[in-house]
Amino acid sequence: MTSSHRIVLLAHGSSDKRWCETFEQLAAPTLQAVAGSRIAYMELASPSLEKIIAEGITDNIYEYTVVPLFLAAGRHLRKDVPAMIRDLENDHGVKIHLAPPIGENPLLGEAIKDVVTLQLDQARTSPP
Amino acid sequence: MTSSHRIVLLAHGSSDKRWCETFEQLAAPTLQAVAGSRIAYMELASPSLEKIIAEGITDNIYEYTVVPLFLAAGRHLRKDVPAMIRDLENDHGVKIHLAPPIGENPLLGEAIKDVVTLQLDQARTSPP
Repeated sequence: MTSSHRIVLLAHGSSDKRWCETFEQLAAPTLQAVAGSRIAYMELASPSLEKIIAEGITDNIYEYTVVPLFLAAGRHLRKDVPAMIRDLENDHGVKIHLAPPIGENPLLGEAIKDVVTLQLDQARTSPP
Repeated sequence: MTSSHRIVLLAHGSSDKRWCETFEQLAAPTLQAVAGSRIAYMELASPSLEKIIAEGITDNIYEYTVVPLFLAAGRHLRKDVPAMIRDLENDHGVKIHLAPPIGENPLLGEAIKDVVTLQLDQARTSPP
């Protein structure tokens, strides 16, 4: 991995601003930790993946890894996103790797356990 | 929280078996760590939330907290799930609390950062 490679966190997108705000908060630690990384939306929100790729090209970046901010792979990740990536590769002369959805990594299951057990601890210790 | 209260992790559900397998793996650490906790699906897969409530009642459990295995709240969590919960409360005489989607907890964003940075470390150290 060099600076000629860019990580793009891909969320579904929605016309609901609160939906996008949640994904921006989810992405924030990664965007801070990984130099040059970006967030993009599949549909219904901006920036689109195409916009992020076009901006990357102006930075001379021709290789991308798309990390889906999805808990599991459904139709979008099995069909729509691979087709979108194929088109972007053809149209822009870039190479785009599609990583598994973040929910397939065991770290996410551990984080979910931490969320639930912390909530239970707080409920136990909070005044009645 | 006492043993008369039950945590239910609620996933969307899909007719795709692989989708459900991913959610079962995501839920596994919580189901192991939190006594009596269960997973349920909103639609298209079993067990349904209603089935989990009905089973809970046979265990004498009348209070539930539903933790949505969703990254953000869209239409399902703002409308469909609250309506489903209201119906279940009325039909079964139980109390059901709806927790925020797990993606609204900052721990998830940290876990996403860990997933991405670990993948980058592995890419850097793997043989060409």
